[in-house]
Amino acid sequence: MASQREQQLMRRALELAANGPARGVNPRVGCVIVSPDGTIIGEGWHRGAGTPHAEVAALSQTAPDAARGATAIVTLEPCNHTGRTGPCVDALLDAGIARVVYASTDPGGDSSGGGTRLRESGVDVEGGVLESEVDAFLGTWMTTARLARPHVTVKWASSLDGRTAAADGTSQWITGAESRADAHLLRSQHDAIAVGTGTVLTDDPSLTARDSAGALLAEQPVPVVFGTRAIPGGARLRQHPLPLIQVDGRDLAADLRLLRERGIRSLFIEGGPTLVSAFVRAGLVDSYVVYLAPALLGGDRVALTDIGVASIDEARRLTITDITLTGDDARLTLSPKGR
Amino acid sequence: MASQREQQLMRRALELAANGPARGVNPRVGCVIVSPDGTIIGEGWHRGAGTPHAEVAALSQTAPDAARGATAIVTLEPCNHTGRTGPCVDALLDAGIARVVYASTDPGGDSSGGGTRLRESGVDVEGGVLESEVDAFLGTWMTTARLARPHVTVKWASSLDGRTAAADGTSQWITGAESRADAHLLRSQHDAIAVGTGTVLTDDPSLTARDSAGALLAEQPVPVVFGTRAIPGGARLRQHPLPLIQVDGRDLAADLRLLRERGIRSLFIEGGPTLVSAFVRAGLVDSYVVYLAPALLGGDRVALTDIGVASIDEARRLTITDITLTGDDARLTLSPKGR
Ligand SMILES: NC(=O)c1ccc[n+]([C@@H]2O[C@H](COP(=O)([O-])OP(=O)(O)OC[C@H]3O[C@@H](n4cnc5c(N)ncnc54)[C@H](OP(=O)(O)O)[C@@H]3O)[C@@H](O)[C@H]2O)c1
Ligand SMILES: NC(=O)c1ccc[n+]([C@@H]2O[C@H](COP(=O)([O-])OP(=O)(O)OC[C@H]3O[C@@H](n4cnc5c(N)ncnc54)[C@H](OP(=O)(O)O)[C@@H]3O)[C@@H](O)[C@H]2O)c1
Repeated sequence: MASQREQQLMRRALELAANGPARGVNPRVGCVIVSPDGTIIGEGWHRGAGTPHAEVAALSQTAPDAARGATAIVTLEPCNHTGRTGPCVDALLDAGIARVVYASTDPGGDSSGGGTRLRESGVDVEGGVLESEVDAFLGTWMTTARLARPHVTVKWASSLDGRTAAADGTSQWITGAESRADAHLLRSQHDAIAVGTGTVLTDDPSLTARDSAGALLAEQPVPVVFGTRAIPGGARLRQHPLPLIQVDGRDLAADLRLLRERGIRSLFIEGGPTLVSAFVRAGLVDSYVVYLAPALLGGDRVALTDIGVASIDEARRLTITDITLTGDDARLTLSPKGR
Repeated sequence: MASQREQQLMRRALELAANGPARGVNPRVGCVIVSPDGTIIGEGWHRGAGTPHAEVAALSQTAPDAARGATAIVTLEPCNHTGRTGPCVDALLDAGIARVVYASTDPGGDSSGGGTRLRESGVDVEGGVLESEVDAFLGTWMTTARLARPHVTVKWASSLDGRTAAADGTSQWITGAESRADAHLLRSQHDAIAVGTGTVLTDDPSLTARDSAGALLAEQPVPVVFGTRAIPGGARLRQHPLPLIQVDGRDLAADLRLLRERGIRSLFIEGGPTLVSAFVRAGLVDSYVVYLAPALLGGDRVALTDIGVASIDEARRLTITDITLTGDDARLTLSPKGR
């Protein structure tokens, strides 16, 4: 059992972790080294790919031999793998650390097994302390590490009755300026943004993240198009500051793995209804953001088409994680129930 | 101009009004009589049909002749009409009231014209003080008085993507127990509840207001069915404690007038999609209550079908007046924009 003091120090380690870069390839990890009498003798966090891991950063603060017999409190199971830096397990053993307390389990792959190796080397190891909190903090990174694919967020904007356009196809604007600005902010917080060829050919979107004056935001998502049809040479998204990726969409799971290999860890899918429904049907959506305009449209331009649900007990059940007003609209954020 | 003191006293009159019965045929009205030196010398409110109006109740508290030269502060324009009681205008003139300050204008019909008659009789009259507040307080009563029809609330329960049933028609349950209990409470707060024949024939609803154990609540809405098809002799709603009203639904405005004549001032429409869409199309909805379940269904069982909107600028624009969680669901309350 981790002591109350150790749990407190895990919160401190999590604070340290938050100093790391939010959009790096590596997870944000924090570490505190505490001597047997309870004094903090080292703190560290990971500053991004190619720099020391949190454990090594924290150990580097301790006086020579001071870490002998000490406890390392770290938000993620220490790695057991030589990448651009050596395994943290070796650094901890070399320093003479006697006890390791960690929160989240390494999601697998080359780096995993650190806890076991430490235990086998005689270190007292305790995992899972504040785990759900740290898992939630690692969010996207955890999903991509566990599933070997990007974290997928689907966004749509509809009228209260679930329509994304009027009968004649007009849809500008269903939602208000605040919702649109909010969505642009979300675009800038994702590694990539995706639409289907249907939307490219109908709406000719630019797929950039812009402020309310139309200027590009600092962070841009990579534009991704799903579908086999050709994208016209003059399409606006060809002016995107980042190069376009097109995948055919026939095997969505395979496409996601490919995007992951291209460094994309979070994907923001903006439509249209066909592509979104295909992702829902395939069970590949991790998060939903739905802007609901206080308007009624009727007709047959629905936000979701067929998602493979025949009967009520097959309904895709979600959980509302946030509900807020964006201007005159309501914004709901949801995730699959039980995840 | 009403003085600040008079505005304060109008708030007091509104407090008094709230003592009246919420579901009576008559409006809830409050009145304060104040002497020229600013002392309150009488307070009253209307206790329901057949009892004295607020002005008369307040005057009855004053000492003989004390009201001579005094000001009457009343939430609704004094009536000029002999119903079960004589006109308030006469009572005020007889008492020698020198000034009348009122909030809401009498919405018309037999009782109106009180302000004008008082003015013609030499009384100093000031209308419209705190009017919007009092109008809002009178809510349903004002609507029915102005429009000569019941206040119409439409309620539906749908998945986040706007479906009221899965592809095979199953719909029990889309929303959770809390939402259903909430809707039963709303049923009990309306004079009548309505569905179309389609819903009667498919769902065989009882249209009663029940608690979570299934017991009848104290207040029951009159069951109303819209449509020409016959209601089976064994239909559950025939067991309703109140007698059923069926109207054909061919002229909804005329049907509403008829319901008003039968004493119904507030109507709660629970579906189905065909009837609700017809009411929306006809512009006869004053309020919307929508329960959104965090679930996705897809398919073609939509909450609203065709509401006569061809293009985005014809969208029925609403205003969200309330948003809250009922259990795991979200409940949105809306009214037509600009009303
Ligand atoms: N309100 C909103 O939030 C919103 C957002 C976006 C779009 N829209 C509207 O949506 C409309 C376009 O709808 P849409 O449904 O045609 O567009 P879409 O979903 O963007 O594109 C559909 C196309 O995507 C391709 N595709 C790729 N992978 C697929 C898969 N796994 N399954 C099925 N198709 C796949 C197919 O084209 P190929 O034949 O090329 O493979 C398919 O025809 C436009 O009118 C647009 O305005 C609304
Ligand atoms: N989730 C929910 O909130 C909810 C609520 C209720 C029902 N439902 C579902 O809705 C389904 C029934 O749908 P529905 O649309 O057939 O039922 P509905 O709207 O209750 O009934 C439709 C019928 O109403 C009559 N009607 C009366 N006035 C009308 C008018 N002005 N315009 C058009 N029709 C008028 C017509 O029948 P006549 O030919 O007899 O005149 C019409 O066929 C059921 O499956 C039920 O489970 C869902």
